[in-house]
Amino acid sequence: MKYYETIYWEKNSVKMIDQRLLPDKVIYNTYTEYTDVADAIKKMVIRGAPAIGVAACMGIALGIEKSKTNSALKLKIEFDEIAETFRKTRPTAVNLFWAIERMKKCFQNNISLPVQQIKKILVHEAINVYNEDIDINKSIGKNGAVLLKSPCTILTHCNAGALATAGYGTALGVIRSAFDMGKKINVFADETRPFLQGSRLTVWELQQYGIPVTLITDSMAGHFMSRGKIDAVVVGADRIAANGDTANKIGTYSLSVLANENKIPFYVAAPISTIDTNIDSGEKIPIEERSSEEIHFIAGKRITPIGTEAANPAFDITPSKYISAIITEKGVIKKPFKKTIKKIVYQ
Amino acid sequence: MKYYETIYWEKNSVKMIDQRLLPDKVIYNTYTEYTDVADAIKKMVIRGAPAIGVAACMGIALGIEKSKTNSALKLKIEFDEIAETFRKTRPTAVNLFWAIERMKKCFQNNISLPVQQIKKILVHEAINVYNEDIDINKSIGKNGAVLLKSPCTILTHCNAGALATAGYGTALGVIRSAFDMGKKINVFADETRPFLQGSRLTVWELQQYGIPVTLITDSMAGHFMSRGKIDAVVVGADRIAANGDTANKIGTYSLSVLANENKIPFYVAAPISTIDTNIDSGEKIPIEERSSEEIHFIAGKRITPIGTEAANPAFDITPSKYISAIITEKGVIKKPFKKTIKKIVYQ
Repeated sequence: MKYYETIYWEKNSVKMIDQRLLPDKVIYNTYTEYTDVADAIKKMVIRGAPAIGVAACMGIALGIEKSKTNSALKLKIEFDEIAETFRKTRPTAVNLFWAIERMKKCFQNNISLPVQQIKKILVHEAINVYNEDIDINKSIGKNGAVLLKSPCTILTHCNAGALATAGYGTALGVIRSAFDMGKKINVFADETRPFLQGSRLTVWELQQYGIPVTLITDSMAGHFMSRGKIDAVVVGADRIAANGDTANKIGTYSLSVLANENKIPFYVAAPISTIDTNIDSGEKIPIEERSSEEIHFIAGKRITPIGTEAANPAFDITPSKYISAIITEKGVIKKPFKKTIKKIVYQ
Repeated sequence: MKYYETIYWEKNSVKMIDQRLLPDKVIYNTYTEYTDVADAIKKMVIRGAPAIGVAACMGIALGIEKSKTNSALKLKIEFDEIAETFRKTRPTAVNLFWAIERMKKCFQNNISLPVQQIKKILVHEAINVYNEDIDINKSIGKNGAVLLKSPCTILTHCNAGALATAGYGTALGVIRSAFDMGKKINVFADETRPFLQGSRLTVWELQQYGIPVTLITDSMAGHFMSRGKIDAVVVGADRIAANGDTANKIGTYSLSVLANENKIPFYVAAPISTIDTNIDSGEKIPIEERSSEEIHFIAGKRITPIGTEAANPAFDITPSKYISAIITEKGVIKKPFKKTIKKIVYQ
């Protein structure tokens, strides 16, 4: 059994597995310019809220490390420009902005040090974020696993696995953890059009872990719920508002309504850094509209008539009323989310 | 503006547009053996409940026409074998079985005539079914169009258009009819994985009619409903039970739940021949499981890891409670469906 790293730091460069090519080709790209890291986030070489956060930290560290200035003040100006570049990559996942803030704070705390030392500290901080993310995922996994009975068939959407994080995964972390505890776990994975994170990434990861998985199209999830084939739904999150409303991959909202109608528990697994207490409700979360090319082309082949207009919102909002619990590294929180979220974030 | 025929009879042969190749290539296949027509139904060269019915009629006529026997009794034995071949092609759409019964009745009514005349009558009957289907669709269109306000944005799933029928369409017939009445119509079309009937066929048809259409992935439908972008859902049907439960393309059930949750009317448009009064409820409708290859490959390119297990139910059941009305050629029927269906079928 071989595990693949999503992203890692290696001598003045950032390495990332190119998730656009999986599972067909396993290729690691090497980035030596921060602008290329930002571009890789935009183009979804790397995706998944926590992974984007880690990539932004490493990208910022890379940009700072390559700076030629000897003035901390000038370095700060460069930092702001670099941070701005990352801020513009993708709008929905809040972990990106959280990561940028964390690097900014680290810079500010060390601004009086010599430039060479600041550089080292920022690289170190990026690697810290990476390591912490893996630990956080393992805690999420442990906290969530107890919610799953045995045997249990779990539906998941998109990829909230090792590939969406520094490693281990959030939703898939819960599933892995339950599996490792000896529970009899089966997974149904939505293929997740248009980018096919489910069929290309989630199935591939679960195969590596040896967890049984059945791939379905997104349109089949409701059918299997209505036939009693699904015991629980576990998904990741890109941003959680203060009231528990959750932005996640397009299609998540539908699953939550269908789970609710069929009385199936619906769990969101995410690190605390995904919670955005500055936003009271889901309506205010910006939803990224991606290029319609993602719908027109599959594996380089056009599948739609020329001239077709296609909409491509990458995320949707699941109202908190459809969410049974939010699984975080600090514990599982339940309704009323407004109260429990505040408590867990500021505890 | 050019319209394409779905299927037609031409001198001892059946011609069909190959729907697997659309919109990339417009190719008509010529069938001179009934077994090849049956195979074309199985392999989805032609699909859509009413179109399958017409194809079965023409296929039976073809088989009978090519018979070498001069005995009506022997011809009847051949008929039964041919009918059996078609009966085994696809299990869910009841129009197939309705069509076979109709040809059988026609044969029985004329069994005392000379064989050459029986052959002519059966070919004539198949062409009748074809022509009637177009008229039926136009009536469905007219009856359904009045349900749509103007302006109106309609979500549809799969393809219930001219390509799913002898011509004009059921769900798309309603949309075309409303459009022709001068109503301001917009359509959202689900791409409909795995076979992509939405992106390949529905978008293509609507473009030909000049009706504005936005393509979305199946997972986006709920999102657009929740944002108030959809005024009505109109879909076709493969079989309607006596209580109104409806089998239709996989994903229809999810749309019905989502429409219900968002207080959007959900209409089923289908000919009376789609109603199966022998079946009281949806649970008893057989659901075809198709090859998982349809999920693994898109346009000849494999998109899933080797060894992936995929489920591929081609249809699901929408409970009648989620259906606002069923639009037929004899009128629009509403709840309680058990009563209204009985009335309309036997009127």
